[in-house]
Amino acid sequence: MTTVHSTLDRMIDRLITQRVALGWAAGCVAGTPGLVMEIGLGKGRTYDHLRSLFPPRDILVFDMWARVPTALRPDEDRLLLGDFRDTLPAAAELFRGAVRLAHADIGSAQEDDEDGIRQWIGGLIEPFLAQGALVLSDRPIGAGRHGWEALDVPGTERWAYHGWRVG
Amino acid sequence: MTTVHSTLDRMIDRLITQRVALGWAAGCVAGTPGLVMEIGLGKGRTYDHLRSLFPPRDILVFDMWARVPTALRPDEDRLLLGDFRDTLPAAAELFRGAVRLAHADIGSAQEDDEDGIRQWIGGLIEPFLAQGALVLSDRPIGAGRHGWEALDVPGTERWAYHGWRVG
Repeated sequence: MTTVHSTLDRMIDRLITQRVALGWAAGCVAGTPGLVMEIGLGKGRTYDHLRSLFPPRDILVFDMWARVPTALRPDEDRLLLGDFRDTLPAAAELFRGAVRLAHADIGSAQEDDEDGIRQWIGGLIEPFLAQGALVLSDRPIGAGRHGWEALDVPGTERWAYHGWRVG
Repeated sequence: MTTVHSTLDRMIDRLITQRVALGWAAGCVAGTPGLVMEIGLGKGRTYDHLRSLFPPRDILVFDMWARVPTALRPDEDRLLLGDFRDTLPAAAELFRGAVRLAHADIGSAQEDDEDGIRQWIGGLIEPFLAQGALVLSDRPIGAGRHGWEALDVPGTERWAYHGWRVG
């Protein structure tokens, strides 16, 4: 037997970290009001998990496309499709200060765009956040951002995830 | 907290079952000669895991396409692209009786085709198998097949996997 860390191993690490981090986030915001925000629908896995963790909360979903089965497609008035740089500022007018938890799994975005997204996505999320809201991301999108207090996210021994308490 | 089993939960179950089942299969065939055969490259995750488990064995890979990063692309002479009903019979002429372990994860194939594949894929794999070879699949492709002895595959409490010793 060998200790090579395969693509299968890494995918398991990534998904288990997501599950642990999302469960932790659910605990952090328990008993507080506010929406959940999912930046990136992707295959709909973490959106579906957020639905299972937060049945009483509305979930706003942003992505370029919704390439998911019908059962994983958010309601039309909660699904905002297009470039984040257009959809986030537009939706911020409607949902300013209304979000309790924002989750941004951007690691699966085009590698070329990643550094770019990492720099500006935090600024586009911030207007949505209620006082003391939680932001969770696979990338350090809150690093160096004023008023974003970095938190220790559990379950990140094998895959990176980052959390911030904002404001 | 709720007990809903989300899409994220199910994907974790699937990948962990694959990892446990592949590790078990590696133990079953340890010390015996023969090739490994991967029916379906998909995203290359289990192929990469097979590479990590079987560094001394050649791995024959069959799929319609190879939509994977270069690092996960098999060598050209081990990669057989096209409809399984064409590529398997053609390759069986070259590799008759040479395979020790065949892995067929066909659950991600088009749902419409699944019942079809389940019926005929076992017959197309069989000519490749060495005496006493192992077949592992997420679907019961060996059910009712003469000379295929069903085995108990460990790690299948949350996701189905099936194994057979053939001949």
